[in-house]
Amino acid sequence: MRILVTGFEPFSTHSVNPSQKIVEALSTEKFLGVDLRTLVLPVDHVRAPGIITETIRKDQPDAILAFGLASSRFKIGLEQVAINLMDFRIPDNSGKQISDQPIIEDGPAAYFTTLAVRSLLTLLQEKGIPAEISLTAGSYLCNLVFYTMMHEISSQTKPTQAGFIHLPALPEEAAKSDKTLPSLSLELDLNAARIMINHLAQNFRRN
Amino acid sequence: MRILVTGFEPFSTHSVNPSQKIVEALSTEKFLGVDLRTLVLPVDHVRAPGIITETIRKDQPDAILAFGLASSRFKIGLEQVAINLMDFRIPDNSGKQISDQPIIEDGPAAYFTTLAVRSLLTLLQEKGIPAEISLTAGSYLCNLVFYTMMHEISSQTKPTQAGFIHLPALPEEAAKSDKTLPSLSLELDLNAARIMINHLAQNFRRN
Amino acid sequence: MRILVTGFEPFSTHSVNPSQKIVEALSTEKFLGVDLRTLVLPVDHVRAPGIITETIRKDQPDAILAFGLASSRFKIGLEQVAINLMDFRIPDNSGKQISDQPIIEDGPAAYFTTLAVRSLLTLLQEKGIPAEISLTAGSYLCNLVFYTMMHEISSQTKPTQAGFIHLPALPEEAAKSDKTLPSLSLELDLNAARIMINHLAQNFRRN
Amino acid sequence: MRILVTGFEPFSTHSVNPSQKIVEALSTEKFLGVDLRTLVLPVDHVRAPGIITETIRKDQPDAILAFGLASSRFKIGLEQVAINLMDFRIPDNSGKQISDQPIIEDGPAAYFTTLAVRSLLTLLQEKGIPAEISLTAGSYLCNLVFYTMMHEISSQTKPTQAGFIHLPALPEEAAKSDKTLPSLSLELDLNAARIMINHLAQNFRRN
Repeated sequence: MRILVTGFEPFSTHSVNPSQKIVEALSTEKFLGVDLRTLVLPVDHVRAPGIITETIRKDQPDAILAFGLASSRFKIGLEQVAINLMDFRIPDNSGKQISDQPIIEDGPAAYFTTLAVRSLLTLLQEKGIPAEISLTAGSYLCNLVFYTMMHEISSQTKPTQAGFIHLPALPEEAAKSDKTLPSLSLELDLNAARIMINHLAQNFRRN
Repeated sequence: MRILVTGFEPFSTHSVNPSQKIVEALSTEKFLGVDLRTLVLPVDHVRAPGIITETIRKDQPDAILAFGLASSRFKIGLEQVAINLMDFRIPDNSGKQISDQPIIEDGPAAYFTTLAVRSLLTLLQEKGIPAEISLTAGSYLCNLVFYTMMHEISSQTKPTQAGFIHLPALPEEAAKSDKTLPSLSLELDLNAARIMINHLAQNFRRN
Repeated sequence: MRILVTGFEPFSTHSVNPSQKIVEALSTEKFLGVDLRTLVLPVDHVRAPGIITETIRKDQPDAILAFGLASSRFKIGLEQVAINLMDFRIPDNSGKQISDQPIIEDGPAAYFTTLAVRSLLTLLQEKGIPAEISLTAGSYLCNLVFYTMMHEISSQTKPTQAGFIHLPALPEEAAKSDKTLPSLSLELDLNAARIMINHLAQNFRRN
Repeated sequence: MRILVTGFEPFSTHSVNPSQKIVEALSTEKFLGVDLRTLVLPVDHVRAPGIITETIRKDQPDAILAFGLASSRFKIGLEQVAINLMDFRIPDNSGKQISDQPIIEDGPAAYFTTLAVRSLLTLLQEKGIPAEISLTAGSYLCNLVFYTMMHEISSQTKPTQAGFIHLPALPEEAAKSDKTLPSLSLELDLNAARIMINHLAQNFRRN
């Protein structure tokens, strides 16, 4: 089973991005029966969708777990839906701040995740990892990559289990912040990723 | 240098108490130049102050780090002040819920911590641990033990560095909660405790 | 110009629903050039979509402002998108709690609002009313009515400006709550509704 | 019965201060049996304590209700305790930012309010006003004025019912804020003040 795991580079005031950290850590690990591909995406509204689309076409993954940072979240968020909207509160790393534009002109308003998010949620919670189903992936780069990848796999004949997972801020970021910023340790993020990869692989072998 | 580290047993809906966990973990560790004494207190408004007072009189610690759980906190809280008030929102483990009563009749309204909380804060933040000075230790068991111990050492001739530290909920508790409960890993709690113990020991040797 | 304004009856632990209150208040007011129709919907996942669909077909409104309660919100939320999902955390008033079901089998994943939500946001903020664009209307009755009405108007030839607006809890509810529940006064809710109705009417006359 | 009601001028990024607004509004109102004195204090750590002390000595009020702004609070906070600490997160309006200093050298660590805060809380909640007992008035100007006035009346023979009440941000401030800032209407603040003044006056007449 080929699984593509993606993260993002740091952006804005965030000097580290937990999604990059877990992708880098996972790239050195072995999972039974899994051909794991990893990718760190630029926070660039032109390059990121280009790279994810190209990678999907080239690698033809059976599953995609795309990770990103959602500072201010309390729990790991299994995203339910990607919407056809770019509406950035801050510029991306290319310096552009898009307001109220569709991602794909004439694309559908939204795509639902094709991951079994409720089964994954139960698994994570049983392992003591704070997680939740999230009904919005925002309107920034995370949602852009999520929508783009769901759009790409919707045009393929092969079914792909794909979804987006938002990670809270790291404790080291909360340590520097004046505000009441919630945080989650990289160890828990990484554990959550491993649990999801192994679950996908087990189900794949079973079918 | 003799350091007393205390925690509390679980209470109310909290099936584990991080302060108990770190006290148990620390009890098996060695710290250079430190005679470490540990104590897990009952969440009982009669027994807890009795035990802490007796232990201080018997062990004559040079420093006291008392830990407790403050579910809903985002960061580790170095408490500034203990107040002469019991005003419980929930019953203690003996089933009693005290409302608006002084801890010590005719005691002073408050005692300030004698820990160097601002130096400790800087140290913790430098290590990437989310921490803050807190201006209230509540009006439940934590504040009761904090006030009781500060009252006891105020009547002694020997100076004692003593204070109270509140720990957020553990991730495993947040995992079970419907609410947006912030959490912090036991590893970070434990690291914070080790940093504080070592800092106290270093300053003690220097003087 | 015919404008339909809807609210909901109380549900769950909420003894009053601000959306019902403002609909009742607006039903006795006059707006220049506006034929205002008001409707209080039941919190019933079968009856509510039936009633809203029937009312749209019968009344043929030029605009729809649907209001609902989102306890725990800090600001008035102009909803961006309705999704094809029912996933109730609590039962509706008929006692049914639907999990992870589409609203309309084979319906599109989502519909965007056809209200000019960014212009309305600016207007409300200029008047000192706390408001925001919201990217999720949840997966309960509010989203159900929102999706249903957008689905209905999408099949009509006539363009209809329609959207959903979430109101925070009322202060009287926050007064009873133990939690740190944010709230907003009915006067501000009502003012927000008036501003939006007048804005729709002015733009309608201009075109 | 002579009642002194105080508020503060605006400070920092807050262009209006609800405590000033309610003091100005109350100054034009009549309360049965009440000689109401009002005072708007500067946010200046030297002038504010001087003015409040002088006013108490001159006017000899029977009760003092001191109001201030606590942006980020969800409810009106009836403060339990004033502590002998100045530890400013931001400079005051004179440009000084005091860190970790006592208000009164050799003053007691704290004073409890002499208002019957629990009776007042019940009254406010019954009227549907979000209110709570707060265990910390901070370590900025509000706490400074609160401590100073409690210190002054502690040295007088005449008993004075005195306390501090924190008001949340106004909706107009929340409207301008990017953040999830809770707010409360001036009408509710003003109502709360009226309820407290009338309650003090009724109890005074009864005794």
